[in-house]
Amino acid sequence: MDQLNKMRNSKYKVSIVGASGYTGSELARILIHHPEVEIVSITSESHKGKRFSDLHGQFSGIIDFELVGADDVNVAEVDVVFLALPHGVSMEFVKRWIDEGVKIVDLSGDFRLSSPEVYEDWYKKDHTFPKGFDKAVYGMPELHFESISEASLIANPGCYPTASVLSLAPLFEAGIGNTDGAIIDAKSGTTGAGVKASNTTHFSNVNDNFKAYGIGTHRHTVEIQEQLSFLLKKSVILQFTPHLLPVDRGILATSYISIDTEMDQEKLTALYKDFYKNKPFVRLRNQAPSIKEVRGSNYADVYPYWDKRTGKAIVITAIDNLVKGAAGQAVHNMNIMLGLNESIGLLQVPMQP
Amino acid sequence: MDQLNKMRNSKYKVSIVGASGYTGSELARILIHHPEVEIVSITSESHKGKRFSDLHGQFSGIIDFELVGADDVNVAEVDVVFLALPHGVSMEFVKRWIDEGVKIVDLSGDFRLSSPEVYEDWYKKDHTFPKGFDKAVYGMPELHFESISEASLIANPGCYPTASVLSLAPLFEAGIGNTDGAIIDAKSGTTGAGVKASNTTHFSNVNDNFKAYGIGTHRHTVEIQEQLSFLLKKSVILQFTPHLLPVDRGILATSYISIDTEMDQEKLTALYKDFYKNKPFVRLRNQAPSIKEVRGSNYADVYPYWDKRTGKAIVITAIDNLVKGAAGQAVHNMNIMLGLNESIGLLQVPMQP
Amino acid sequence: MDQLNKMRNSKYKVSIVGASGYTGSELARILIHHPEVEIVSITSESHKGKRFSDLHGQFSGIIDFELVGADDVNVAEVDVVFLALPHGVSMEFVKRWIDEGVKIVDLSGDFRLSSPEVYEDWYKKDHTFPKGFDKAVYGMPELHFESISEASLIANPGCYPTASVLSLAPLFEAGIGNTDGAIIDAKSGTTGAGVKASNTTHFSNVNDNFKAYGIGTHRHTVEIQEQLSFLLKKSVILQFTPHLLPVDRGILATSYISIDTEMDQEKLTALYKDFYKNKPFVRLRNQAPSIKEVRGSNYADVYPYWDKRTGKAIVITAIDNLVKGAAGQAVHNMNIMLGLNESIGLLQVPMQP
Amino acid sequence: MDQLNKMRNSKYKVSIVGASGYTGSELARILIHHPEVEIVSITSESHKGKRFSDLHGQFSGIIDFELVGADDVNVAEVDVVFLALPHGVSMEFVKRWIDEGVKIVDLSGDFRLSSPEVYEDWYKKDHTFPKGFDKAVYGMPELHFESISEASLIANPGCYPTASVLSLAPLFEAGIGNTDGAIIDAKSGTTGAGVKASNTTHFSNVNDNFKAYGIGTHRHTVEIQEQLSFLLKKSVILQFTPHLLPVDRGILATSYISIDTEMDQEKLTALYKDFYKNKPFVRLRNQAPSIKEVRGSNYADVYPYWDKRTGKAIVITAIDNLVKGAAGQAVHNMNIMLGLNESIGLLQVPMQP
Repeated sequence: MDQLNKMRNSKYKVSIVGASGYTGSELARILIHHPEVEIVSITSESHKGKRFSDLHGQFSGIIDFELVGADDVNVAEVDVVFLALPHGVSMEFVKRWIDEGVKIVDLSGDFRLSSPEVYEDWYKKDHTFPKGFDKAVYGMPELHFESISEASLIANPGCYPTASVLSLAPLFEAGIGNTDGAIIDAKSGTTGAGVKASNTTHFSNVNDNFKAYGIGTHRHTVEIQEQLSFLLKKSVILQFTPHLLPVDRGILATSYISIDTEMDQEKLTALYKDFYKNKPFVRLRNQAPSIKEVRGSNYADVYPYWDKRTGKAIVITAIDNLVKGAAGQAVHNMNIMLGLNESIGLLQVPMQP
Repeated sequence: MDQLNKMRNSKYKVSIVGASGYTGSELARILIHHPEVEIVSITSESHKGKRFSDLHGQFSGIIDFELVGADDVNVAEVDVVFLALPHGVSMEFVKRWIDEGVKIVDLSGDFRLSSPEVYEDWYKKDHTFPKGFDKAVYGMPELHFESISEASLIANPGCYPTASVLSLAPLFEAGIGNTDGAIIDAKSGTTGAGVKASNTTHFSNVNDNFKAYGIGTHRHTVEIQEQLSFLLKKSVILQFTPHLLPVDRGILATSYISIDTEMDQEKLTALYKDFYKNKPFVRLRNQAPSIKEVRGSNYADVYPYWDKRTGKAIVITAIDNLVKGAAGQAVHNMNIMLGLNESIGLLQVPMQP
Repeated sequence: MDQLNKMRNSKYKVSIVGASGYTGSELARILIHHPEVEIVSITSESHKGKRFSDLHGQFSGIIDFELVGADDVNVAEVDVVFLALPHGVSMEFVKRWIDEGVKIVDLSGDFRLSSPEVYEDWYKKDHTFPKGFDKAVYGMPELHFESISEASLIANPGCYPTASVLSLAPLFEAGIGNTDGAIIDAKSGTTGAGVKASNTTHFSNVNDNFKAYGIGTHRHTVEIQEQLSFLLKKSVILQFTPHLLPVDRGILATSYISIDTEMDQEKLTALYKDFYKNKPFVRLRNQAPSIKEVRGSNYADVYPYWDKRTGKAIVITAIDNLVKGAAGQAVHNMNIMLGLNESIGLLQVPMQP
Repeated sequence: MDQLNKMRNSKYKVSIVGASGYTGSELARILIHHPEVEIVSITSESHKGKRFSDLHGQFSGIIDFELVGADDVNVAEVDVVFLALPHGVSMEFVKRWIDEGVKIVDLSGDFRLSSPEVYEDWYKKDHTFPKGFDKAVYGMPELHFESISEASLIANPGCYPTASVLSLAPLFEAGIGNTDGAIIDAKSGTTGAGVKASNTTHFSNVNDNFKAYGIGTHRHTVEIQEQLSFLLKKSVILQFTPHLLPVDRGILATSYISIDTEMDQEKLTALYKDFYKNKPFVRLRNQAPSIKEVRGSNYADVYPYWDKRTGKAIVITAIDNLVKGAAGQAVHNMNIMLGLNESIGLLQVPMQP
């Protein structure tokens, strides 16, 4: 095990299951410097025996230990396990470890929705561990802090839902505006499509290019609808359109909602300020944020704008899809589950330029 | 004068006023191979005496002739003059040449709106040639072919309005949907901001980045509103939000409009097919287009999508902001004014990758 | 067959074998507007029956005809066939068609080297048609115009060799400098790696990134060595190092050669001017060219610089790897083989920005 | 003063002079989490009174304190001052504070060379504080650790020299190879050109583009020559060619040196291993590194390759120009000057992707 880890008298032992993807490497980037934890193993079935730094050259000399198989993880000695796996695979590990006393943060989409039925409807595949839904808590700390602190299984939110829900939560909780007509026009970097080479992420298909995809059908739609319906205490149908940006990281969501009750900029800002009071990772901005202003960090920059001319609120939110939209939020959830200061190990300054 | 030009027995002589910007160099790129015209001069006040290829290295050995001052343009011997100038400057040249018999295509925003009053309201500056509005025809051939063919002054459309109006024109003409609630979420490459270096276009502020700007206030809003109101025969208030993409060229507009009358995909497609019948530069696509699929060309790729779940039509349109959104549309207007085949000299294949 | 083709009374019929790659689509982009030829078929074994524009969306409405299998090409009715195929596959088609009277331009590496032995040594695979080497002419018009004009089989040069050989040819022909110590440090866009998705071309592995590859071993090394040795009339060993740029298109080669005889900038420039006299696609520049100044065009911009301080000539050359480095040079070769004006159909203005 | 700073019982107080540039913001990014220091002030003459986060949005909520003028810095209470200023300006502050007892790390080029004469020759401007050269130590810890530990004024190395000198130092110290014929072909991201908008860094001039600049004349040449001459104990003339990459950060240097004595890969690797033993920020790689593998970190990844075929050593080195090439190396120097563990606060994991 590596030096950096050894030097600490860390209280908590964690394991990362799934080494090859971007969420795996981002978890490692954050956890290796987290003062309260030690990474005791990183697993990969396909790369077992290789060094972690063979897969991710940036870790040369930093995390050089060998990848093990998931079978080699002794969960009895681990406090938290992070599942950085594709959906469909993750549920198998949840089934296997859920009663072993280890806390689980699942970064896949397997337990984010309200029921196996909704899952099967939007993910077009059978769910093999429906019971998991009873224990799973949707890990968005700004909304569910209390439940997270008592959970043993966290369904870590999707990247688009993180940006979208944070954009509209204050309005939906307050029941302000034509919530049912809300539109979320979202734009994401390519890392959201994963580490695996494909036509979608082929450089010449992305570079100097831009397009919409999954129009009307993207599965994050239902995740956003469910969370906002929960806040509104009423079921809503929303429009969500994702686009592919020629950038590595970052999501920018531009949301529109008509408001016909009395509104002005001051009121709108106050509503957001109030909702995000004492939420360390939501930064209310007074101008439209760019994705580079949050890159590499766990911050969500939110800017609500009132357009008097059209009677619409426009909310712009920027996050790093791999951090606030994945690994960072996962560590945030871990901090809460372990009763630590919620922002410990997560205060990296965004990397701009 | 250069070889390429000399070889032809061109019927028409054209002049480009304003050499330093991107619309100037794009006009040259298109016109130098146009079989019916000859570029007789390109002007620049600040670079007078330099060669055009000194400013735009790509033209080395292609257009090496000297830039002249606007005073050196003998408009009596010129058939068409293109004004590739900033707004505010353009109107001065229109005033000077409008009665000289030369046809003028003005690429600035000076005569695009319905009146000097609207101009002054949104452009925040006085208009010094209000009479020009009487002669100016809004040069969007898909909407105003007849008027263009008889015009002596063309107000060449803005880049965002071109993409936005083409997206929604069929629905507005037909008066279908909640036209007043329409939302246009548009994304543009940086060449839309011009050739001049600024913080906005500083590489490290744009690269791997993305942001919204001009939220609720961008002056193209009124241009879009006026054209769509004209089609609807009723005044509308629209929402338009521009964003800055880390790409050189290209605009992608994603538009949303609620429809509560009976609609389905087939009907929607038919409506668009009918509207754009015999329009050589609008390509109706059956999937979402990307901006690279039109790059360097005069095509506008339009994809109307019906979302039954939400009751909304979503229309995606891609153009090259410098071609269909500027220089290409200008040459299209010239072709029509001169009574030529409207697509002559404009059939460049988009450059992908 | 499409409209654009039909309108012409074209003299020559051409076929493109291999539709899916970038060289195939670039050939189509150039040939569709070539005034002396008609594309009679484009083939693809894996996409037979699809429309060409299904593979390459930019051709929607431009080339919509169906892809056929290579067996469907009636070479007896075709004047020139372009092989846009991977090496190893190309040689099979050369074998099949070489005696059918059709002229062949092979864009692969199968016949570029001096012998099957050299091929097998560097390409690490057997050559199944060694006889082809007797007929093949290396298709670099600046060096081999005469042989090309009489050839029936053209080995179209590699992209790196095109930039490298054009950089150093004048010095090697003149036998000036320490030719054996010449170093070529070259940088290429990702389209050189082809259309197929791979880790090498995965967006997040390329974007905002840069690296060297194939150090000391790249197979273009021997192609460069052979061509420059041919000019020098003496065998040389050269250093060639390729790098991967985060751009779509373009190669920039920076070459270094020590010169201990008398030299100055004027002499060096004169040497290059003389060598490239009447070569329409080599533009001698008086400052370092950038790759965008030649993008989308068949130009090679060459800038020789004399560094008195170090006694070295440094030569910078920029080309578009898909045009001058592939499809454009192929059409140039076709023009020469058919006895046409060598630059016909090839005078596209570089697309900047 | 901000919370993060307050929470610590920091021993050392530091001040950053020059807030607006990238080196200023990178210093802040690193120092704000450095466990042994407290940032007591950040200065800017032109932005005095604004908040630091107004200039650099990524610091919103992190460093919101007000910028002060340099006159407001009480150097008597500061342990280390970082000068993040343009050359020519920096020397004035060195003159003013050099005798005040504060340690100075100067990130400009003002004291990097061996004498005022050499400075004036290459920087083409007068040096107004020649005496500073007596005290200045060239702050490359891998070469000058001892002198740095005793210094009061550090001339922090240039970005290109850092990559270049680290590439060749082992060979020059050992006196191996044709050192006088060494060639360094270097490629840098645009942040090396600074925060100020200019044609050079205009997005559309850089994106999807690549070019060489300062051929034969770049002022970093002499800095590299002097450091390598110092190691060789003999004066050398080197070739250095910089190029501009379409990326934000990162330098990759590809260096060539002929070796005619006995050499093989093992020997070459051993030479580098030995030279960089116990140097925490040089990572000897066994394959060519990419710039993203060091992005945002203080690592220099070095890969020496022996090409038996040509008799040349090729060395590839990757650094982040803003960190190892500027702010990170500056903090490294500070750590050494203060007698701290040299790598404290500097172990950020590179951000890939």
